[in-house]
Amino acid sequence: MPAWQMPTPNDIVYLFHSMHPALTSFTSVQDVSNDIPALVEEALRLKASPLAWNELGRNKTLALVFFNSSLRTRLSSQKAAWNLGMNTMVVNVGTESWKLEMQDGAVMDSDTVEHIKEGAAVIGAYSDIVGVRAFASLTDKAADTSEHTLSQFQKYAAKPLVSLESALRHPLQSFADLITIEEIRRRENMKHRPKVVLSWAPHPKALPQAVPNSFAEWMHHADVEFVIAHPEGYDLDEAFVQGATVTHNQDDALRGADFVYAKNWSAFQGENYGKVLLRDTSWTISGEKMRLTNNGKFMHCLPTRRNVEVMDEVLDSPSSLVIEQAKNRVVSAQTVLKRMLESLALNSVTA
Amino acid sequence: MPAWQMPTPNDIVYLFHSMHPALTSFTSVQDVSNDIPALVEEALRLKASPLAWNELGRNKTLALVFFNSSLRTRLSSQKAAWNLGMNTMVVNVGTESWKLEMQDGAVMDSDTVEHIKEGAAVIGAYSDIVGVRAFASLTDKAADTSEHTLSQFQKYAAKPLVSLESALRHPLQSFADLITIEEIRRRENMKHRPKVVLSWAPHPKALPQAVPNSFAEWMHHADVEFVIAHPEGYDLDEAFVQGATVTHNQDDALRGADFVYAKNWSAFQGENYGKVLLRDTSWTISGEKMRLTNNGKFMHCLPTRRNVEVMDEVLDSPSSLVIEQAKNRVVSAQTVLKRMLESLALNSVTA
Amino acid sequence: MPAWQMPTPNDIVYLFHSMHPALTSFTSVQDVSNDIPALVEEALRLKASPLAWNELGRNKTLALVFFNSSLRTRLSSQKAAWNLGMNTMVVNVGTESWKLEMQDGAVMDSDTVEHIKEGAAVIGAYSDIVGVRAFASLTDKAADTSEHTLSQFQKYAAKPLVSLESALRHPLQSFADLITIEEIRRRENMKHRPKVVLSWAPHPKALPQAVPNSFAEWMHHADVEFVIAHPEGYDLDEAFVQGATVTHNQDDALRGADFVYAKNWSAFQGENYGKVLLRDTSWTISGEKMRLTNNGKFMHCLPTRRNVEVMDEVLDSPSSLVIEQAKNRVVSAQTVLKRMLESLALNSVTA
Repeated sequence: MPAWQMPTPNDIVYLFHSMHPALTSFTSVQDVSNDIPALVEEALRLKASPLAWNELGRNKTLALVFFNSSLRTRLSSQKAAWNLGMNTMVVNVGTESWKLEMQDGAVMDSDTVEHIKEGAAVIGAYSDIVGVRAFASLTDKAADTSEHTLSQFQKYAAKPLVSLESALRHPLQSFADLITIEEIRRRENMKHRPKVVLSWAPHPKALPQAVPNSFAEWMHHADVEFVIAHPEGYDLDEAFVQGATVTHNQDDALRGADFVYAKNWSAFQGENYGKVLLRDTSWTISGEKMRLTNNGKFMHCLPTRRNVEVMDEVLDSPSSLVIEQAKNRVVSAQTVLKRMLESLALNSVTA
Repeated sequence: MPAWQMPTPNDIVYLFHSMHPALTSFTSVQDVSNDIPALVEEALRLKASPLAWNELGRNKTLALVFFNSSLRTRLSSQKAAWNLGMNTMVVNVGTESWKLEMQDGAVMDSDTVEHIKEGAAVIGAYSDIVGVRAFASLTDKAADTSEHTLSQFQKYAAKPLVSLESALRHPLQSFADLITIEEIRRRENMKHRPKVVLSWAPHPKALPQAVPNSFAEWMHHADVEFVIAHPEGYDLDEAFVQGATVTHNQDDALRGADFVYAKNWSAFQGENYGKVLLRDTSWTISGEKMRLTNNGKFMHCLPTRRNVEVMDEVLDSPSSLVIEQAKNRVVSAQTVLKRMLESLALNSVTA
Repeated sequence: MPAWQMPTPNDIVYLFHSMHPALTSFTSVQDVSNDIPALVEEALRLKASPLAWNELGRNKTLALVFFNSSLRTRLSSQKAAWNLGMNTMVVNVGTESWKLEMQDGAVMDSDTVEHIKEGAAVIGAYSDIVGVRAFASLTDKAADTSEHTLSQFQKYAAKPLVSLESALRHPLQSFADLITIEEIRRRENMKHRPKVVLSWAPHPKALPQAVPNSFAEWMHHADVEFVIAHPEGYDLDEAFVQGATVTHNQDDALRGADFVYAKNWSAFQGENYGKVLLRDTSWTISGEKMRLTNNGKFMHCLPTRRNVEVMDEVLDSPSSLVIEQAKNRVVSAQTVLKRMLESLALNSVTA
């Protein structure tokens, strides 16, 4: 029987494979739902040693495709990729590149210059992992709820796909939110099951439901008491609510809350889809509102409208976690990219 | 007499020099016309081992200057540069940077902020190789046919210059097209001299002649039977046609074709310069048209207007090479950049 | 007593610390005013060996935030960072990213999407050094003269901050200008104290005073005779003039000049703030004007309006230093970034 030997790359990859399922898509919590506690632990380890896997992505390329503006997602995804040694290529669709046609069978005799079939295939051909940001239109509910743009990229880019916020979900944000909650639980030595409240908040413009949908979806997989508060008419899709406690009384919801996640969204139900039904500042998160909580922490995905969604006194207080959440966007992206790179490495070794 | 010794860098550079002419400009097939078969072989070797020369461009910078939108060129040039270890800096003229004045002697008291003399010199000063995309205006035929923007960069940037599509030519595309044709010849074990048809196709907007010009120019250097088909009034500049067979009967041209390269262009001749003369869908490449060919492959540089230039049934069939062509944009750019980096290395060793 | 030993990283950092003050801000000459000759020497050494410190910035990130267009600053900052091994992330505010709210206490119910408090904090969280370009509005003198945007970034990004041109100053340009003057003094073996003239020049648009302010501020720290020439009504802020010789007679100023620095600026004083008072082409720098000088060199920060600010015959003559100045933008940025990286290294070793 031989003495101990250096493990071969194959040994290491099989060992990895025995521990983690391959990750080739990160568009909703379903992609990782069997593995969330391990994923959070890995994120916290990566946060402590961000350069530990700095060779894993060497000479690999992350394409970042933006149909919409971005600050946090744009920068944190780049930083995450660089920490893993990857290159990043950015595509600003419609400004730097061509306006894409989304409809199958379209006769392209108008203003769209390239079909997504070609656009996605070409971006996929030049990269190893593809990230796509494509917000809801809020006008075409059928297209939005079918995640049409994202699914076209999934189909035609033919590479591991990371959602950078789609019509329905923003999983990198929700994963960062969960990491943030877990950090606070440990830091504050919270023994009880924390109460987490997702509260609608006012906003001058109609916003998609992606962040609240996604946050709900992830909270269902966390060991928390989860409550959603919103005015009448702002019900989210039941696919995301999944039987969570829903109330139209914000104060009731806030009582005893450990975490208050504020976010505006436009109406989802029926013919009000994409509409702003009220701008009621009684739903603005204020210091007075926060005093109803259990010394609760304030969370928001950013960008936020100061003194509309939330008052300065809350954002500027020590209870605000918004910058912590933003910082954790690097580590949520890096954890996902690391798993995808490991899955790619597995494929190349076992191929 | 000494035993065998490690060759010095000088030895290697002289050896290279004895094999390849220095490459300091890649703006038309003329820049490489003595060396095309070797260039194609090198491209195919690079495609098999894209990272084999990953140190050649270390700490060298490629500037990519865009006067127009770009997807394939933007991304494939970056990928090619990274494969060689280079950095890439992108300049989106007129949006991120200043609007450039092109005319010598202009009194700049209007909307142009910087003269190309300074703009090009500064970009050249910060980089080792400069790539420029500057489409034809289609309104100023004299400026377009003189390749004014490209030649100003050639003069003032004073660095090796790569065309990323100019008014008259798109040589990185044509080189990728030639590589693609060569790959298919080998893969399909084609014994005969292939028939290659460049066919005009309809389009809602007026497009430049750069791609058909350049494709023709490269096909004249390939071992193929080359035919151009277009409606009356769409004659290309004779400088590019160079006595190729030209027909106004698309069906005649397609019969027996091994490769069908579809592309729209606007009129070139006389006072019709830059005009759309017809949008006749009888020139659209359909499955029926393709059945006239010798089981021909379909080619297009992309972006393409689906169901206007070419029907879905063709693009979505196995005979379509459009994604293969796009993939070969990386290797065409990388081959050109590699030759330029080798020429720069030669200069620095022998200086 | 031990024999000589390899110095530890601590030894090296303390040695550095004993020689240079820590640099955590580069927004005006005040940040380096005790150290300018050493800084110029270091810049010249870096210019000779740009890659000598190529490992110093490894895995460090420079964020480049642009509220305004940029060519030289954008590219030279990237090049400088890459020479030091850093990554660079670019934020084009308002186009790729969100429009930022600048006012404390604002009720954000209109068109600004994110407050600079969050925007700056997030950018700071993702990077190690932050560069910001934010021109003067020329409409809100109070905001401009308080350097509001820059100071908000200083406060909320909480990272070493480099001005990429602010409302009042452009220190990377002025440092590059000083390096250029010093190179010429040595190259031409100038024994006398050179006469440097900053001359107003006409321009079709209203421009900020940042470049002339900053150039004056730096010249006060250089061993030169410094003269400012401008038409009546164009007095700069006395904080920058600092008792320099000021004349309204351009010809008088130019006589005997070794360096002529031309630049347009709009009125600063009183209710004329930000206005164009005259477009008098008698102030255009021509060959005839230059013949009044002591075989003087022509300088401009670029971009320049040819045949409005300065005639072709001057820019195209050997006496023009404008491209030399632009080249020195790399080395001025690199020297500043190097000092900041060394200060960061010091912090991390001694922390």
